[in-house]
Amino acid sequence: MSRKPVLTVTLNPALDVTYDVDEFVLGQTHRPRSMSVRAGGKGVNVARVLAGLGESVVASGLAGGATGRSIVDHLEQAGIPASFTWIEGESRRTVVIAERDRATGIWETGPVVTAAEWATFLDGFPALISTASVVVLSGSVPPGLPADAYAPLVQAAAANGVQVILDAEGPALHHGLAANPTLVKPNADELADAVGTEVDTPERALAAAHRLRAERPTVVVASLGHQGLVAATCRRDYVVTPPIRVPGNATGAGDALVAALARGLARGTAWPDMLADAVGVSGGAVAAPVAGESRIDIARHITDRAIVRAIEHDADQGSQCDHASCRNS
Amino acid sequence: MSRKPVLTVTLNPALDVTYDVDEFVLGQTHRPRSMSVRAGGKGVNVARVLAGLGESVVASGLAGGATGRSIVDHLEQAGIPASFTWIEGESRRTVVIAERDRATGIWETGPVVTAAEWATFLDGFPALISTASVVVLSGSVPPGLPADAYAPLVQAAAANGVQVILDAEGPALHHGLAANPTLVKPNADELADAVGTEVDTPERALAAAHRLRAERPTVVVASLGHQGLVAATCRRDYVVTPPIRVPGNATGAGDALVAALARGLARGTAWPDMLADAVGVSGGAVAAPVAGESRIDIARHITDRAIVRAIEHDADQGSQCDHASCRNS
Repeated sequence: MSRKPVLTVTLNPALDVTYDVDEFVLGQTHRPRSMSVRAGGKGVNVARVLAGLGESVVASGLAGGATGRSIVDHLEQAGIPASFTWIEGESRRTVVIAERDRATGIWETGPVVTAAEWATFLDGFPALISTASVVVLSGSVPPGLPADAYAPLVQAAAANGVQVILDAEGPALHHGLAANPTLVKPNADELADAVGTEVDTPERALAAAHRLRAERPTVVVASLGHQGLVAATCRRDYVVTPPIRVPGNATGAGDALVAALARGLARGTAWPDMLADAVGVSGGAVAAPVAGESRIDIARHITDRAIVRAIEHDADQGSQCDHASCRNS
Repeated sequence: MSRKPVLTVTLNPALDVTYDVDEFVLGQTHRPRSMSVRAGGKGVNVARVLAGLGESVVASGLAGGATGRSIVDHLEQAGIPASFTWIEGESRRTVVIAERDRATGIWETGPVVTAAEWATFLDGFPALISTASVVVLSGSVPPGLPADAYAPLVQAAAANGVQVILDAEGPALHHGLAANPTLVKPNADELADAVGTEVDTPERALAAAHRLRAERPTVVVASLGHQGLVAATCRRDYVVTPPIRVPGNATGAGDALVAALARGLARGTAWPDMLADAVGVSGGAVAAPVAGESRIDIARHITDRAIVRAIEHDADQGSQCDHASCRNS
């Protein structure tokens, strides 16, 4: 089955380094038992999950220095084509010191992007999206870029008839949303922050999602951790509940959920199936040891047993439905 | 003044990364206030101190991967010519998380060196030393190499009439010493370990140094921290005491001491002056914030005021004196 790839955009990718130590003691020097290195950052994690699911994907964004080179090398070793715009600054690392029951982290800030580098990326973006089925914009906007950096990317995708998922928070979400992406994927905290209300139940999450999409047809999928997700689409709302609570490491679960949504949009999967798949792939990521991976067996178990409740909109809400994603409604 | 450069050999160089954090808390994630990166490893530190003193130096050894590339880039940015043999493995990093009064470290092991890579280095070594005044062999022998890896380097230098300083410990010191280098520079612990006696005073250090050089004319300079150093040369012993105890960071003080010895051997400086210089440059390194640097003002203050006590050998000890370094005796 040949299909256009999903294109992920990661403006501030990372090289994720984990040192395994038996006991981490402040003030002492440690020789790690083992270390692991992988390409990271939210969009890169999405790309790695998609590749793990056997989907066609291209990873793009901004990368620089020896660390940027390592990020691209790790992606290519994982069989993921990388098409990053090269910047002068050095891409960031995240360093985690992992004991058996505790993880201590150091997050580098990442490089400052110049206006000229950003212009180079924007110039090349139409060519990148011309080969894509869906564009995924994930993570924070790096230092040096305007808060609305995602807006022209959303607009360029729309102009080329390519669907866009935006997974961001704060001003990046606010400004990106204004450009009307196909879908945004806040988690409960990000959604609460965006609308200024508490989001502690699926019902409140749906109410907040409706406020977020009040003036545009963007689909809002809010991830609610072990409670599953809610989605506000053009014609219906959905509340999707997983059958089990998966123990493990929630880091990267949201990125796995986005990967499943991207796959669903690319395939034109109907919303109920797409959302059940998203809850499953996200749960499979909780069961996997590191971000960017999802246990397929666990994902399938959850997807097959997820409870999907559909709630019809009032008739007047449907009037905004002019969006490509509504083919799936 | 044109002079042949000192050649440093670092078989297991490192990229030294320091993250500055206000408070490092186990189990939490930290965004460092600042970070600094520099080329490290004992021989690289020697090269950086020599360059800081305005001396001509070439840094060599084994390097690999993106980290090896960064090490070489940092050296070249510091104006230090680098001539490393490239290996398949990735060079190591040291990571230090620095709070105001505490440093917590993670030392990567470094790559395994293959027999073919080592053969390539050995093949190229005569060409490297042909341009050198003094060769400095510093630090641990990396995984994959024989414990006596330094021996053929010492022999090659001797065959080319180039003086050699060996700064190593354990089996690397033992086997390297057997090849009769010009000078070895153990610290008190390394010397104690090598001869199996306690080394807690200058007198005991000299006794241990005599045991170490019992069967060969290698000069032994033992660094004793704030107590200064002792040296056992062909005709005399020396006890060199600094006039002040410098507060600061002793990491890299031994490398600075070796740098001064290399400069002294290269210039043919008489032992008393060379050893006073070594104590000064070492003290200047304690006053400098990071390894590989020495405060010249403090170094000069100490050197000018160091107390150098010479002790004549018995006549029969002088009979072993057939060594190039004894020009300086």
